[in-house]
Amino acid sequence: MNASELPQRLAWIAVDWGSSNLRAWGLDRHDQVIAQASSDKGMLSLKANEYEAELLRLVGAWLPATDQTDVMVCGMAGARQGWLEAAYLPVPTRLDQLSQGAVMPTLAGSQLRVHLLPGLSQTRSAATHFDVMRGEETQLAGLVADTADFSGLACLPGTHAKWASLEAGAVTGFATYLTGELYQLLANKSVLQHSIGSDDLQDPACREAFISAVNEVKAAPESFSSRLFGLRAQDLLDSRLPSGKTRGAVLAARLSGLAIGLELAGACRERPTEQPITVIGNQALCHRYTLALNAIGYQTQHLDGDDAVLAGLRLANRAPKY
Amino acid sequence: MNASELPQRLAWIAVDWGSSNLRAWGLDRHDQVIAQASSDKGMLSLKANEYEAELLRLVGAWLPATDQTDVMVCGMAGARQGWLEAAYLPVPTRLDQLSQGAVMPTLAGSQLRVHLLPGLSQTRSAATHFDVMRGEETQLAGLVADTADFSGLACLPGTHAKWASLEAGAVTGFATYLTGELYQLLANKSVLQHSIGSDDLQDPACREAFISAVNEVKAAPESFSSRLFGLRAQDLLDSRLPSGKTRGAVLAARLSGLAIGLELAGACRERPTEQPITVIGNQALCHRYTLALNAIGYQTQHLDGDDAVLAGLRLANRAPKY
Repeated sequence: MNASELPQRLAWIAVDWGSSNLRAWGLDRHDQVIAQASSDKGMLSLKANEYEAELLRLVGAWLPATDQTDVMVCGMAGARQGWLEAAYLPVPTRLDQLSQGAVMPTLAGSQLRVHLLPGLSQTRSAATHFDVMRGEETQLAGLVADTADFSGLACLPGTHAKWASLEAGAVTGFATYLTGELYQLLANKSVLQHSIGSDDLQDPACREAFISAVNEVKAAPESFSSRLFGLRAQDLLDSRLPSGKTRGAVLAARLSGLAIGLELAGACRERPTEQPITVIGNQALCHRYTLALNAIGYQTQHLDGDDAVLAGLRLANRAPKY
Repeated sequence: MNASELPQRLAWIAVDWGSSNLRAWGLDRHDQVIAQASSDKGMLSLKANEYEAELLRLVGAWLPATDQTDVMVCGMAGARQGWLEAAYLPVPTRLDQLSQGAVMPTLAGSQLRVHLLPGLSQTRSAATHFDVMRGEETQLAGLVADTADFSGLACLPGTHAKWASLEAGAVTGFATYLTGELYQLLANKSVLQHSIGSDDLQDPACREAFISAVNEVKAAPESFSSRLFGLRAQDLLDSRLPSGKTRGAVLAARLSGLAIGLELAGACRERPTEQPITVIGNQALCHRYTLALNAIGYQTQHLDGDDAVLAGLRLANRAPKY
């Protein structure tokens, strides 16, 4: 599209504003993406009074001169330490009603009308634990954009992996697993750092090590901590391990399998299902989770993370604005 | 004792040389300690050719002028990256025969005759996993110093906590848990760092949080990873948590309980016992483990870590030298 046509066609802006980056999409009145931009100015690097300028820097050229433009934002921009707090909605919450918890920063004379979507919270009860999410709820809303009464189990891999149970379009419960962060800490900061390289699940040796570790921890989650040190001991003692780069790759695959296996042991115990699990996120990480889930007997389907968040933001934008 | 009498009375020297520090004791011919010294020159800060000088710096003034003095050393000085490698002895190994695996660095014209004790290794089988220890075997040898045919289960808490099964004076199997290192990484380097303070198990609120976490993870080890993130969520959501310093203390106690509970879930599953478990180490950490073990129904007895390693080194020194 000719850049000069953009302001004429722009209907609204969708933004996923995370801890460490920010992605914005311009959409026309048919909800089609007609522009995109991104930056590394996430919540962690911005003060509350810097958000508007950063957003204008990215999308200012898209804006029509006359009208205000709605901007629908999900993620950490709505955290207490972000732009303005959009208080958590407690579960159960219907995903087509997230916008009821949105807040609008006061922006005197601005071309932008910004809506910050809330996260979800869960308090402790007999069956549940304290938990929070902020950003992932909008990806989950993507599941109900086409199927308002969607029911099923969703897994969102990542630094803090989320599992959510959906019933008739509402999140009824969820849990966060520290999987990605545990992996990074162990691979880079622990005694294991000398043994762990970079894995490649296309390599049969890595794939076998990964799947074997998933199965071991799924069957005996109480062994997680000793199997971690076992990686170091295996590096010292196991004459069957390959040498060179493949050695570190196989041990990395095994560490990844241990961390993901612990998550799956917990999630599948807490949320048993016979239906396919929807895995939401980028392709490489979802492929890894799919391998692990299939290995322990679960079916999966993949939803791209960007598609999910855009679908969720579209749904929020279609709802009445408060 | 008058310092000038020391060289006359010194019979031998016991040394525990770890990764980050070094402790030496001078003993008389009745195996009584008559001198002690320590430094922070552990294996990680020394090259192979620097060990003798460091040892002489600490104990040089103790040495008789005429004879060579035996020095019995356990710990990381015998690692491959230490002074000289004393290869691991594979389990099962009788603890009164550790000295059969000792090696002697060549020290031309030295006043010292140094014996580096080996560690223990375990290879993978149907029932066991790859594992290694170096230093802890000498503390375990302290258990058989008085009771040659000691049988029982021993727990050595620490950065890398060890559990060992002893039968008739031999280590038959062991496992290492990354407990201390996991706690440190999570408390200091993860998303939890903002929530975790310093606990005090004398405080009833801390003690209750600690024991409750131990029980939860012992009962459901697969929930470990989600309960970690739950600490962060609890800090954000739980209105019943105390404020101020006590808040961080209670959450630290809970994190400690989760990490130790995961270890106990694994160790007690792998090594069931009705006998008291011998907990070896410093008083504060052993007290913490005793609280946890008692809470889940195990009896314990405590052996001071310094007493244990000295008893083990005495036993090694009494054995024929190879």
